[in-house]
Amino acid sequence: VTEDEIVQNIRVTLSPSTALRTGSEGRHRILLGIGDDAAVWQPSRSHRSVISTDMLVEGVHFTRELMTLEDVGWRAMAANLSDLAAMGARPVLATVALGVPSTAPEEIAQIYRGIAACAQRFNIAVAGGDLSRSDAIAISVTVVGEVRPSNVKTRAGGKLGDVLAVTGELGASRAGLEIANQPGLVEGAGCVAALRAFRRPEPRIAEGRFLAASANVTAMMDISDGLSTDARRLCTASDCGAEIADIPVADSAREVAHVRGEDPARFAMAAGEDFELLVAIRPRAFRYLAGRFEKRFKRKLLRVGALSKGRGVAWRGTALDSLGWDHFK
Amino acid sequence: VTEDEIVQNIRVTLSPSTALRTGSEGRHRILLGIGDDAAVWQPSRSHRSVISTDMLVEGVHFTRELMTLEDVGWRAMAANLSDLAAMGARPVLATVALGVPSTAPEEIAQIYRGIAACAQRFNIAVAGGDLSRSDAIAISVTVVGEVRPSNVKTRAGGKLGDVLAVTGELGASRAGLEIANQPGLVEGAGCVAALRAFRRPEPRIAEGRFLAASANVTAMMDISDGLSTDARRLCTASDCGAEIADIPVADSAREVAHVRGEDPARFAMAAGEDFELLVAIRPRAFRYLAGRFEKRFKRKLLRVGALSKGRGVAWRGTALDSLGWDHFK
Repeated sequence: VTEDEIVQNIRVTLSPSTALRTGSEGRHRILLGIGDDAAVWQPSRSHRSVISTDMLVEGVHFTRELMTLEDVGWRAMAANLSDLAAMGARPVLATVALGVPSTAPEEIAQIYRGIAACAQRFNIAVAGGDLSRSDAIAISVTVVGEVRPSNVKTRAGGKLGDVLAVTGELGASRAGLEIANQPGLVEGAGCVAALRAFRRPEPRIAEGRFLAASANVTAMMDISDGLSTDARRLCTASDCGAEIADIPVADSAREVAHVRGEDPARFAMAAGEDFELLVAIRPRAFRYLAGRFEKRFKRKLLRVGALSKGRGVAWRGTALDSLGWDHFK
Repeated sequence: VTEDEIVQNIRVTLSPSTALRTGSEGRHRILLGIGDDAAVWQPSRSHRSVISTDMLVEGVHFTRELMTLEDVGWRAMAANLSDLAAMGARPVLATVALGVPSTAPEEIAQIYRGIAACAQRFNIAVAGGDLSRSDAIAISVTVVGEVRPSNVKTRAGGKLGDVLAVTGELGASRAGLEIANQPGLVEGAGCVAALRAFRRPEPRIAEGRFLAASANVTAMMDISDGLSTDARRLCTASDCGAEIADIPVADSAREVAHVRGEDPARFAMAAGEDFELLVAIRPRAFRYLAGRFEKRFKRKLLRVGALSKGRGVAWRGTALDSLGWDHFK
């Protein structure tokens, strides 16, 4: 099998997701896709463009024992889309750089099936990529999105007194990791939900766009390294502190924490890769916005605390050290 | 050293290249750079956007014995810029996903110094990235550029009778690889030039933009896998064949081929990563365009052959098998 033949197979796997955007009805026209030196598209004239990149490495972010290669492909795309969600952007196109062991065309196909499934679900065209040998699988996805100039939300806009809220309960992905590591750890519906959260996380694209459209949302980011770490980042960027009062813990996370003898709130706070959004909202607007959010998405916008004077994040009155995930610690 | 501290160091290393674009004079304003969930920029209203990605893996594309980590960073950026050159695009911004062994903050700094040097030289802002652990170093760069709609050149526009030309002599990078592998293999000025071509290749950005502006250039791509492989790709896309008559061989490649007892033309034809451009030009326009090219760039636009009927690439009357580099063969 030559590289050109493998690329041809990838084009076929991706064709439904690419077709989404190449049709003349598409608002974003991909003018040239996979197979040339670069992909070409027509950006929106009224929007700003947004770009983000994430790398997943076998043995660091995933192992083959704990998820299928299709799951790996999905996760790689979902992690990147979550960054677009955090900017309130709509997805436009993605590129994929993939390193795999030389003997593995079937592995490439499996990874791309997961990438294509996630791309199709969230309406993003995979427009280009690169393929390389590599001892461990490495996937680097880059996503481009678009957002109205007035809707761009950074981490830096949070103001004293703002409500801090999250778009969903935390800890399910970490619970799923632990259940995948140790089958039978907990049973029941929570177990299935946790494994799904771990293997097929859903970026909050629609939720991000909804929240970005409100002038009362002052800062937004996705929780990829755990609420404790990411809340600290938002506070640093916004030049304030935060008091965390309530941690919405997913049922499965509560169960796993219970079995492990850990505090459920701590377990959930240190849990990365739930890909929920963390938002700062002007206090007078929170109730109204949360009501509209629940009506629209059939899920609650959950208050976790408020931005405060000073620096750092406090929880139950104690300064919180970083409990999250740091690749270099 | 925490991840956030490493990211802060990277921002400092990159600041000259980022500053190029964040000033209010810049035509492309990077509105939000490294440190948030995504970077934000304002695309040109009159241009199309172009994106390409490439991954370099330690042990596959480079080894630390043969070049410094600064060279590795330069090459990763240069390989991507070469794809923009092939589209006739001007560079706008890049993202970098980097996997490195956990214990190596100095390695990260070295790689980023090479990335920053190349970014500054070719006027592209590094606007975002990701950092991960990884046993072998893996660098995935994604570049975004812009091109006038009328100037987009793909591989597919070549027409029967078009002159095939390249922007420079071939084989120097491969010669440099062999000299780095075996110091003393050849001596003299050619040796220095070859090592430079191997370690600090120069993407043909200005040449690509110049050629793309001509309506008589019908197809363009960069030679990253060797003339034999890449000419076949251009022919396949343009639905024609090619007769290669002359191979412009770099002096250093000639010397190394001589020492190795190989045919210099074959050596140069199979040599990847020179990052010269391969262009198809309407035959009546070639002489005039080559004259303007030489006047502008003080280097020749070198005729290598012509597009012909049929399929595949012939050289000295013989069908040419792929002699190039295929990661999966």
